Amino acid sequence: MADGVVLLDTWASAFGMRVRIALREKGVEFEYREEDLLNKSELLLKTNPVHKKIPVLIHDGRAVCESSVVVQYIDEVWSDRAPLMPTDPYQRAQARFWVDYIDQKVSVVGRKLWTAKGEEHETGKKNFIEALKVLDGELGEKKFFGGERIGFVDICLIGFYSWFSVYEKFGDLSFEAEFPKLIAWGKRCMEVENVAKSVPEREKVCAFAVELRKKLGLE
Amino acid sequence: MADGVVLLDTWASAFGMRVRIALREKGVEFEYREEDLLNKSELLLKTNPVHKKIPVLIHDGRAVCESSVVVQYIDEVWSDRAPLMPTDPYQRAQARFWVDYIDQKVSVVGRKLWTAKGEEHETGKKNFIEALKVLDGELGEKKFFGGERIGFVDICLIGFYSWFSVYEKFGDLSFEAEFPKLIAWGKRCMEVENVAKSVPEREKVCAFAVELRKKLGLE
Repeated sequence: MADGVVLLDTWASAFGMRVRIALREKGVEFEYREEDLLNKSELLLKTNPVHKKIPVLIHDGRAVCESSVVVQYIDEVWSDRAPLMPTDPYQRAQARFWVDYIDQKVSVVGRKLWTAKGEEHETGKKNFIEALKVLDGELGEKKFFGGERIGFVDICLIGFYSWFSVYEKFGDLSFEAEFPKLIAWGKRCMEVENVAKSVPEREKVCAFAVELRKKLGLE
Repeated sequence: MADGVVLLDTWASAFGMRVRIALREKGVEFEYREEDLLNKSELLLKTNPVHKKIPVLIHDGRAVCESSVVVQYIDEVWSDRAPLMPTDPYQRAQARFWVDYIDQKVSVVGRKLWTAKGEEHETGKKNFIEALKVLDGELGEKKFFGGERIGFVDICLIGFYSWFSVYEKFGDLSFEAEFPKLIAWGKRCMEVENVAKSVPEREKVCAFAVELRKKLGLE
């Protein structure tokens, strides 16, 4: 395992999807290792001792953790092809700002929609809608957040699109009605070959979340 | 204001300090504008409509928000001098990982030490000590996190050093006893001219926090 690229991941993770898309966009061959998060491998615990979370990218025996950090790493190592970040410093800062926003607002709050109850659920739903409205406004009439092709922000958000059915089901929401632009953007992303290869169908993720809720005793 | 560099900031902010240090390390002249966070300026609300938070860097009329994003922006715009990020992609990923760690673990949890009570305070204290232990281990015997000179991680952590007296006072902690390496690192950082210029004395920050607790009705 000293050479090459290994990805420790789990199929339904919106964070793992980021890394899969980035590697495929760059045309980097990698060994995918599915992790069972209820029984983490020794390798995962060893390579990410701080957070003990997937995804972990192991490149030539060295581990890189935290998905948004990993995507930037991939962009910098394989810098000769398919740029994921803009070149202009201001545009780069904007892309980093929005990915940070997604990490702060969409991920944590989205989880509340299918795990929390009562007031926490209601507040989560309110905050979630607010966050997506902001992202909808930022997307505006653009094809992708990155412009004409997918970039850092698209790659970091599209994984959550695969969770939209989960949020709809447990949040009693209709994304199509509330955020038609975001839904159209999600469909456009899914037409990109490397996205389609990396992001599972919404129905599959929804079935997974239903099962997970049972396992976690949330039913 | 179309030209030049303006920083919207507030003196006691550990996040604002990051930007001040970065600009000074690069030798960039800037206009400092102190914000009253209880009465935010129109300019702040206009330039950071999403978070409505300082620091905001306005460069040639365009705003960049979120301190860790701003520091990277500064490093990329003034790339011909005093590099703040390493050049090697793996080292860059490590630096980003640790700054993300500081943002996730030190900042939020540190606040609990001087604002929370009861169980929340105790949990906060436990998590805070744990986070600093991890950082202490990462620093190890290095002079700075960045190696021989201050870099991205040092710049993003040193502001919290100025809050250590606050954490000690309200967390009933002794940093000198618990984290002698981090304290020695903090002292070394404060010997760097641009850090000393940008980071207030710990006693001054402590007096500020005592006053703020009163204003917030936490006494």
